[in-house]
Amino acid sequence: MRTQVAIIGGGPSGLLLSQLLNKAGIGTVVLERRTREYVLSRIRAGVLEWGTVELLRTAGAGDRMDREGIVHDGCYLSTAKGMFHVDFKKRVGKQVMIYGQTEVTRDLYDAQEALGATVIHEAEDVALHDVDGDAPYVTYTRDGQEYRIDCDYIAGCDGFHGVSRPTIPESIRTEYERVYPFGWLGILAETPPCADELIYANHPRGFALASMRNPNLTRYYIQVPLTDKVEDWSDDAFWAELKARLPKEVAEGMVTGPSIEKSIAPLRSFVSEPMRWGRLFLCGDSAHIVPPTGAKGLNLAASDVHYLFEGLKAFYQAGDASGLDRYSEVALARVWKATRFSWWMTTSMHRFPDQSEFDQHIQESELEYLAGSAVAQAAMAENYVGLPFDE
Amino acid sequence: MRTQVAIIGGGPSGLLLSQLLNKAGIGTVVLERRTREYVLSRIRAGVLEWGTVELLRTAGAGDRMDREGIVHDGCYLSTAKGMFHVDFKKRVGKQVMIYGQTEVTRDLYDAQEALGATVIHEAEDVALHDVDGDAPYVTYTRDGQEYRIDCDYIAGCDGFHGVSRPTIPESIRTEYERVYPFGWLGILAETPPCADELIYANHPRGFALASMRNPNLTRYYIQVPLTDKVEDWSDDAFWAELKARLPKEVAEGMVTGPSIEKSIAPLRSFVSEPMRWGRLFLCGDSAHIVPPTGAKGLNLAASDVHYLFEGLKAFYQAGDASGLDRYSEVALARVWKATRFSWWMTTSMHRFPDQSEFDQHIQESELEYLAGSAVAQAAMAENYVGLPFDE
Repeated sequence: MRTQVAIIGGGPSGLLLSQLLNKAGIGTVVLERRTREYVLSRIRAGVLEWGTVELLRTAGAGDRMDREGIVHDGCYLSTAKGMFHVDFKKRVGKQVMIYGQTEVTRDLYDAQEALGATVIHEAEDVALHDVDGDAPYVTYTRDGQEYRIDCDYIAGCDGFHGVSRPTIPESIRTEYERVYPFGWLGILAETPPCADELIYANHPRGFALASMRNPNLTRYYIQVPLTDKVEDWSDDAFWAELKARLPKEVAEGMVTGPSIEKSIAPLRSFVSEPMRWGRLFLCGDSAHIVPPTGAKGLNLAASDVHYLFEGLKAFYQAGDASGLDRYSEVALARVWKATRFSWWMTTSMHRFPDQSEFDQHIQESELEYLAGSAVAQAAMAENYVGLPFDE
Repeated sequence: MRTQVAIIGGGPSGLLLSQLLNKAGIGTVVLERRTREYVLSRIRAGVLEWGTVELLRTAGAGDRMDREGIVHDGCYLSTAKGMFHVDFKKRVGKQVMIYGQTEVTRDLYDAQEALGATVIHEAEDVALHDVDGDAPYVTYTRDGQEYRIDCDYIAGCDGFHGVSRPTIPESIRTEYERVYPFGWLGILAETPPCADELIYANHPRGFALASMRNPNLTRYYIQVPLTDKVEDWSDDAFWAELKARLPKEVAEGMVTGPSIEKSIAPLRSFVSEPMRWGRLFLCGDSAHIVPPTGAKGLNLAASDVHYLFEGLKAFYQAGDASGLDRYSEVALARVWKATRFSWWMTTSMHRFPDQSEFDQHIQESELEYLAGSAVAQAAMAENYVGLPFDE
């Protein structure tokens, strides 16, 4: 088989890139190791930057999002001194969209089907060949049979544990990493949200986040030690701890119920440079991981896809390779800014086991300053709603 | 002797408080351990927030400052990617005044003399008594003779090593501290400034600051390991290292000359709470120390003096003790915000020996974001020019 762009990974970034390229008349094949059902069972982020919203619309995959998504003007931050609101719309004129990553992926699958795009599931033993030459190809097996796809370019959208990044020789790669000394215990519950917008809470007992997916589906998180196991936390224990970390008035009005998903995720920051090697381009989690504080993961994948799509479009439609040549530099500039913001929000909102009394006071002063400063709120807001793709 | 307010320490905060109180008809005695010449020989900060400028004018000690001081609209930040300007006036409508602390102190001495205020130098063995009772008094010796001053209130303006803070029992005090793993080697030289405004430089070789006192007096600093001694640094070595850390175009135009002062200072953040105990009020360095990055030390002393002066004035003129009762809380709220800002600027601009590659990239991303964001610059600017005294 031959295609123009082979896309490794059928998660939201691979599907979004494929969708944009197909609509622009550029041929793709998407290879996904798992089944579609498995991909759709993964619970991930739920806050879309406006740039991501517009990219999904451009891809022709925004109709249900526009019908069912919930537009938020801001978010709440809760501290020991009380809760305050950061109004993104007022501060920087932009908003965010609440719409689960699972729903984004489902919509992209549907859009790909409608276009007749090629998405191959259960593709095993995927390997990338001659990536730094002129005739790259990808091999995989399916149902015991070997296949080969010849292509012009390869997009590595296969996540942190995928094969794409390791295909780049270690001598070429530089990896930057920070592992945070705690995890997030999260549950999904079929309950109405406890507030009209998200609440990020810095509490002496630890961080908590009250989030939502839709009017009857909530997502709550609490910071836990890395040594905790999911089995340690009954639903009752979770709700009690969550309520203790949220403002009293919020906790009192909260509707609880059985969890339909419960898991613990570690938090890390990770960036691998460069994001291009030869004819391979990395997008999303295959090149970088952010902690979930500030919801930048899916949105960074979307901005990578935007840059790569524009580069490929300019190449195929006008023979202009400059976008592809600048891809790594341009994508990384935005990646580092979002990595900085996610690090800042994580650092500002969590209790760290090794934090001194001084550090703790600095953290409280940061939030107190933010509570009272219009320009500090604007700086937070412009990052939260997403820095512009093009500057 | 009896006075209304005994002021311990004849540096700028003690003199400014005394000056403001005297002008409001409230009696003071200032006790200073050193000679006037010694006090005036100390080289300190040189950037005044606008609130400090206005307070000096209110105190009747602003005439020479207004004639000789240099108003700066902003400052420069230099990074590995180039130098950029932060325009305080454009971002937040305020400026700063370049005028040395030594000059401020000299003007305050002159103003005190003009008012006939009592400033006692070489007061030794100062001790504070019955501070938590109704009849506090201060004792000291001078030329071998013992003296006692009875008073209503005591202002502890005697710096980090003074007797005022240790007078507060340890069981009452909480101290927060961060010691930074480097020092500043600074020189004073009779040379014209290398730029029209200050340059803060984050360079792979370490931090550098190009500052000035007047059109023919410059103050330069470079970050050095704490193990370095002043003797290790010849003038030539200093200038060479400074130039290596500043932008090439600045270094090339720099006029150098013999140093007239050279010293190494450690960097620390320190806050002691509360700032009031009984009838003792701490002002300035006796209660808190900031690293010099961002020039907040003298300015924080000025805001403490402002709060204490307003509290004493309301008490003596209207019998209203509420300002005195709220002094510690109100002063500390501003102290912590400035402590946070000084910590942020120090952390953003210096190379840390234990910094990981990830930390280093976050630092660079912070400065790159700042270079391109109007609201991030506004947040820096509002802190640099000084948060308002009253919110």
